[in-house]
Order: sequence, then C-alpha cells, then structure tokens
Amino acid sequence: MKRRNFLQAGALAALTGGIISPTLLTGCSNPTNTKRSSGQAKNIIFLVSDGMSIGTPVMADLLLFRKEGRGSRWMDLYRKNEARRAFMDTSSADSMVTDSAAGSSSWGGGKKVNNGSLNVNPDGSFNKPILQKFKEAGKSVGCVTTVPITHATPAGFCVNNKTRSRQDEIASDYLNLKFDVMMGGGQEYFDGKKRADKKDIFSDFTADGFQVVRVKDDMEKATPGKPVLGVFYEDGLPYSVDMQSEPELAAKIPTLAEMTRKAISLMEGNGEGFVLQVEGGKVDWAAHANDASALIYDQIAFDEAVAVAIDFAKGRNDTLVVITTDHGNSNPGLIKSHGVDAKFDLMQGAKYSNEWVLHGIRKTDTPSHLIERLNFAQEITVSKEEAKSILLHYESLENDGLYNDYKLPYKELAIIQQNYTSIGWSGMDHSADYVELAMFGPGSEALPMFVKNSDLHNFMLEAAGIPESVWIV
Amino acid sequence: MKRRNFLQAGALAALTGGIISPTLLTGCSNPTNTKRSSGQAKNIIFLVSDGMSIGTPVMADLLLFRKEGRGSRWMDLYRKNEARRAFMDTSSADSMVTDSAAGSSSWGGGKKVNNGSLNVNPDGSFNKPILQKFKEAGKSVGCVTTVPITHATPAGFCVNNKTRSRQDEIASDYLNLKFDVMMGGGQEYFDGKKRADKKDIFSDFTADGFQVVRVKDDMEKATPGKPVLGVFYEDGLPYSVDMQSEPELAAKIPTLAEMTRKAISLMEGNGEGFVLQVEGGKVDWAAHANDASALIYDQIAFDEAVAVAIDFAKGRNDTLVVITTDHGNSNPGLIKSHGVDAKFDLMQGAKYSNEWVLHGIRKTDTPSHLIERLNFAQEITVSKEEAKSILLHYESLENDGLYNDYKLPYKELAIIQQNYTSIGWSGMDHSADYVELAMFGPGSEALPMFVKNSDLHNFMLEAAGIPESVWIV
Repeated sequence: MKRRNFLQAGALAALTGGIISPTLLTGCSNPTNTKRSSGQAKNIIFLVSDGMSIGTPVMADLLLFRKEGRGSRWMDLYRKNEARRAFMDTSSADSMVTDSAAGSSSWGGGKKVNNGSLNVNPDGSFNKPILQKFKEAGKSVGCVTTVPITHATPAGFCVNNKTRSRQDEIASDYLNLKFDVMMGGGQEYFDGKKRADKKDIFSDFTADGFQVVRVKDDMEKATPGKPVLGVFYEDGLPYSVDMQSEPELAAKIPTLAEMTRKAISLMEGNGEGFVLQVEGGKVDWAAHANDASALIYDQIAFDEAVAVAIDFAKGRNDTLVVITTDHGNSNPGLIKSHGVDAKFDLMQGAKYSNEWVLHGIRKTDTPSHLIERLNFAQEITVSKEEAKSILLHYESLENDGLYNDYKLPYKELAIIQQNYTSIGWSGMDHSADYVELAMFGPGSEALPMFVKNSDLHNFMLEAAGIPESVWIV
Repeated sequence: MKRRNFLQAGALAALTGGIISPTLLTGCSNPTNTKRSSGQAKNIIFLVSDGMSIGTPVMADLLLFRKEGRGSRWMDLYRKNEARRAFMDTSSADSMVTDSAAGSSSWGGGKKVNNGSLNVNPDGSFNKPILQKFKEAGKSVGCVTTVPITHATPAGFCVNNKTRSRQDEIASDYLNLKFDVMMGGGQEYFDGKKRADKKDIFSDFTADGFQVVRVKDDMEKATPGKPVLGVFYEDGLPYSVDMQSEPELAAKIPTLAEMTRKAISLMEGNGEGFVLQVEGGKVDWAAHANDASALIYDQIAFDEAVAVAIDFAKGRNDTLVVITTDHGNSNPGLIKSHGVDAKFDLMQGAKYSNEWVLHGIRKTDTPSHLIERLNFAQEITVSKEEAKSILLHYESLENDGLYNDYKLPYKELAIIQQNYTSIGWSGMDHSADYVELAMFGPGSEALPMFVKNSDLHNFMLEAAGIPESVWIV
C-alpha cells in the first residue's frame, strides 16, 4: 500500500469540504476515491481455502445451487455487492508457482521468500510474523485449520523456520508463543510417541497454562482467559465428505466452521480485538489427489466458516474479513461432455472421498468389489475393465493394509471418473494462476484491484491501525 | 440491471444535496453508490477472448513479464486501478456449460438460449440481436474476429438462427443486414465453389455496395461510407504464433489488433457513435486442441487488440470498453514441477503451434524427424519413445496429406509436452467456470460485482442511452 493514496484521499475530502464520509465511499475501487481512518478494523478474520483454483469455489457454488437452491456465502457476497474483490499474484521469491510456506509467509511476513521457507529470506534474515506483531499490539491471536496446526499456512502467520517440514520444532514454538487459540490436526507433532525427540509436549502445554483439548466436546468447554491448543487428529482432519458419513468421527472432530465459531467466542472479549487465520487446508490436499468429492465438500465446509465470519462481522463495523487462497492447485473444472449437467449432479449424492475408496481396497479384491465400493461412495458405476485397471496398481504395493498414499492410483481413478462426473484436472500440483481475494468490512475500501500476496501484510496492519514502525517497508 | 438501483442512487444524491457528482463516484461497487446519466457511452467496444479460462490471460501476462518485462494491457488496467471487474456466470438455457452460440446470444439477445442456438429461444421465438438495435439507433456497427466472421460469437450479436452451423445462411444474412464492418476468416461460406447453394455471394456483396476486401493491403485502403466485408482466409485465420513465423502470411492477413484499429477508423466518424465486437476466436480453438503456444500467443494478440481499444477510449470519455470471455475452456495452467520456471520460459522462443507440428508429419516420418520438427517449433526435445508414441497415431490415418484434425494426436502431444513446459489441461472442451469481465470508460461505474452473461445486453443498451422500450425486460 502506498501512503500517497491516502494523502490523495485526504486531499479529495478537503476539496469536498469533508462531506464525503468513509461509509459513503465504501466500495470504491479507484484509490483516489478512497479514505480510511487508521485502526477501523479492531478484528481481522483471514480465511484461506488452501490451493483453490477458481473452478473450486465455482463448482461448490454450482453444487449448492443445484442441490439446495442457494449459492455459496462467498459468491453471495458478490451477488449482493457486499464485498470488494482483488486479483492476487501468488508467486514466491524463487518461482512463479508458490508453495504454501512461501504463500503464507508473504502475507505473514510481508516479503516473498523461497518455497519451503517460513518467514526466512534468501539471505537468512527473518521477517517478523504478523500474529506476533498483533499479539504485541494487545490483540488476541490464533489459527484454526483442517490440516496439522503446525502446517505451512498457520505457521506462516506465527513462526520463522527455514524449513516448513520441521513441524516438531514448530509445535514447540507454539508453546513459547502462547497464542490464544491454535486448533487443527497434527497430533503426531505433539505426541512423545511420534516426535523425533520423544518429548510429549502436550503435557508441556498443559503445564504452561494451556487448555489442551483433543475432542470437540472439550473444545466447546474451553473458556477465555487461558490459551487453547486443540489437536483433534493424527495428521490432517478427515475430509468433510467422509466426516458427514461417519457420525462417530463427526462427534469427536469439529468442523472448520465450529472451530472458527469457537475461536471467535474465545477471543472476542478482548477490548483490543483479535486476529484469526482460518484455513481450509484439505482443499489443497484434495486437489493434489484429484479427489473431486473431497475437494467440493471441503470447499463447502470452508464456505460455512466464511458464513461464521461474515455473520460475526455484519453490523459490527469493527471486523475486517479477508477471503482468499494462497495459490491454485490442479485447475479443476466442470468440462463439457455429453450429459455434463447430470454427470455433475452425481456429486450431490457423494458419501465418501476417493481416499476412502482407495484406502478400502485390498490386493485380493475383485473388480466387482471396487465397482460396488465406488458406487456406494459416489454413485458412479465404472466398467469392469476400468475397475481392473485400478486394481492393477495394487499388485505392486508392499503392504495389504496401510498404504503409502503416493503410490495409490489417485490420478488413474480421477481420469476414469472424468467420464462419469465430467470434472477434469490439469495436473496434481500448484498452479501459477492469479487468485481470487475478497474483503468485507472496515478497511476493505482501500483494497486495490490487483495485489501482490506480500502487499497484504502491511494492508492488514494498517487496517488495524498498527503503527507504521512495525510495517515492512 | 434493475432500474431500482438507479433510483436509489438518485435518492442518495438527493440526500447529500446533489454534491456527489457521477465522476466523483466512478469506481464504486455498491449499487446504492452509483449513478449514471443515460447515454454516456456513445461508442462501445466489446472484446471477447473466446474460451478463456483464467489461466490463459495469467500465462500471457507471465510470459510478457518474463520475456519483455511488462504486463499485459488487460492486467495492467487492474494494476493501475483503471477498470472495473465483475465475475460472470456463463451458463446457457440448457446447461451449466455454454457453447459460444448461447454465450454470445446471452449478450447479443439478452436471454439465455439453448446451446447451438443464435438468439432463438427454446420455444422458437426470436430475440432481436443487439447490433440490429444499435444500428436502428443510428450507430455504426460491426464485428472483427480471427475465426470465420459467420462463426457463433460474431453471429450472436447479429442474427437469429436456430443452428449456429448454418454459416452459409449467416453469410447471406450479413448481406441483408449491411452492417458497417464485418471482418475475419470464413471464405468458404461466401465462395460459390464451397457453399452448398454454389452461389458466390462475394459478388452479391460487391453488387450491393460493400467494399469486399480479401487481403490486408486492401483492408487498409477501405474508406468510411460504404460497408466493408473483409474475409482473409479459408476458415479461421492462422494462429498468431504461426503468422509471426510466416512473413508471407503476415503480409496478407491482418492481426486482430489491425482489424480492430481499422474497424474503429471506419466507424468513428459517425456522430451517433459505433458498437464493435472484437473476438479472439482462436484462443478457444487452441484450448480445444490443448495447443499451448497457439493459446498463449493468440491471447497476447487479443491483448494487443485490447490495447488498441483502450488507447482509443482513453481521454475521450465517450467509449465504453468491455473485455471478457464467453466461457472457460480446458482450464489450462502452469503447474508446479521441478524447474517449472525454466520450463515455462521455453514458450518465449516458440515459433510454431502444435497444429503446425502435427500437420507437417507424414506417416512415413521417423521419430527423429518429429523430434527435430518439435524442437524447431518450440525448443522442446522429446524422447525417441515419446516421438514414437505420437507417430503411432498416424498409422491408422487414411490420407498422407490432408488430415482430419480431430484424428490427430493433439491430446497425446499435450500430455507429453507437459513434461517439458509444465502447462497442463483439464480436458479439451468448455468449462463451467465463472469468468473474468473488465469494463473501462463511461457506464462502467454501474457494473455490479457479479453478473449473469445475459445481464450485459440491457447494460450496454442503457450505457449507450438506448430507450428502455427496446430492452429485454
């Protein structure tokens, strides 16, 4: 953000005798027409659907329209002209295609860093993470996610680490940071039985005054005042589509919307405000796996978290909501074919993800078993030949129980599924696409039409009235 | 567009004592903050990059940055906060995924129609095409395109026909319509040797007072006053990347930017204004063929036409420029892989399209011939095994000269190329993605954040001050 824009806005106000209030000008896209008092955004809720190519929210919106006769909350913000939009460049310091560590670091530290780094510059110097800045300014801060809470996107708002993969270290960093709410998956990075150093740091968190919660009911019982660490699953949380079909899991593991609601309720009492990052992290994992039902229902679950944030912010006029993604992934889309609408409508009945389908197959299974399993999961009936071609991939696998996910035939299944669902994929990794960004609430009126990911750091600090001395310049 | 929005804007102006001028409010996204005097847009230039998924303009912008150190004109409008953006739904009456006929008809006739139809409703009734309305209002009107001028996108602004494929009929319709400028490819629909009725209607156009031009030099000599029909090639014009490498072709066939500049110069003398549709039609064809160099360089050629339109409109304050697409196609993207940046940079040296490569292969060619040809065309060196797998597809082809394009191994080549360029594709057909829309100039301030494709019809008529009686209601 350039200070000049705000000086120009000031000059404009002077020209018109100050008669134009910021409220009147809410929604203006020309920077010379914008004005913002510092510090209007007491609270910031920053929502990231990780690895979201534009086809992802579009398919979620289309599915909701056809299934429930309503649009997604994100797209409805646009339909009602209630938000502002920007197009965002997502490159990292060393590539046109970012990873989530460099992506989150660009927002979190205000600088593009190399892929894999968390707020560490190519020269080894550190950029102070934004939640540390907000915490020092007196705000409550936190992150909730559907992947490990030590994963790149939350970590990029919290810590410095040259290597995102050091999730054990990041878990220990969280102990020292004592942020107000950190919730998601990633038990393995806290559990002494899994950590390289064999330390059970859950007990350290408890000893240090944290409320450590491991199931949804305990999360709901957490109270403001003491920091909360919520870790609800071994690694990433299960996909939403699978949770919806497994009441036992759903009873124990909160949804992203539930974590978001709880995090807000734990922090909103702070008179200085709060800053919360909300990540739909498994949208990215589903895109990497070309897993359509996982992708679309996790995007819808993300949208439910958007709804929680918007419902909180509406009418308060003190909460800035940012909704975006760190990068595209696999550029999925509903691609024209004979009977495309009916094919897409099959997704309405999806009960389980491709992950669930492929994890449930054994080497010894027959084609008809796979056909039945896939039909039960997604109402898709593949041919015997197609089933055989999938089963072929299991023959070379070593175990007949726990598989290496990277060796399972996700890609091959997705190619076959495209014949039935008409959903296609451009690859199995991040894309260089510029991405969608929405803002709602005070501060949003200053959003330019096109931003670099790293611009958002100062933008948020300024929106919250944090002194310029702590900005990246 | 709802009239109510403008009444609200009027009420707002009344509340503030009328002190807020429309100019001051340029750029406001909230409809209650917008006001527009009727008829500000004397001219409208409507630019369509046909079948443009969002990865397409992004890759064009990235390539320009890396090759020339500058962004595309379209993206620069955003970087400079000079335009307004909307997200546009692209569905047709009978599918979430439109074709170009229904897409152009939604703008051209103000109603969603079934795929394949040109401004004909499912019940058989007609919607009057927008260029007929503008022509009756006294404006000059025309279309320029890189595909046949009788193709769906120009036709959707001009004619009614239940079937887009009746391009012979559409060519004859143009004779009767006598629009001011119609230029592109499609000689086969005018030439007596090719038309089903054996009529050479070029001579009919000449007899009826048209200036019929068949090469670039003659186009440049055309003068205002008499309508111009320009038909420069048998079918669609050659891809830009191929034209750049073939001076003889480039000497005869105008670029989209050259046609745009000429069309404007032919019509701008009309005191009542003009309306011009500009279509980068081969962007869609390249996406259907998963032909990356064809796609990116045709998108850049489209961007050069955008530059012509913006340069004309800048400072005049009487010309509304609309830049959009009718639908996504194949959702291409630069997908992360080892060395992705260097792989993408190969595209900077591309001399020829995949079409050129595949059309030049004979059944009897050796793998090394294909390897050399592809290396010459795009600096990609595929393996002998890969070359063999491509050549395999030629064995079953009937002719050894003129091929059926649908039988050539475009898809297989694109899959192999992805290893070298890191550009991936989600299919070979249109997608349901909502798409990008930009507006520049008077009238643009009323653009909502989200529009249905069919909303643009009334939007344009209103922007130009055409009486409400001719709108779709």
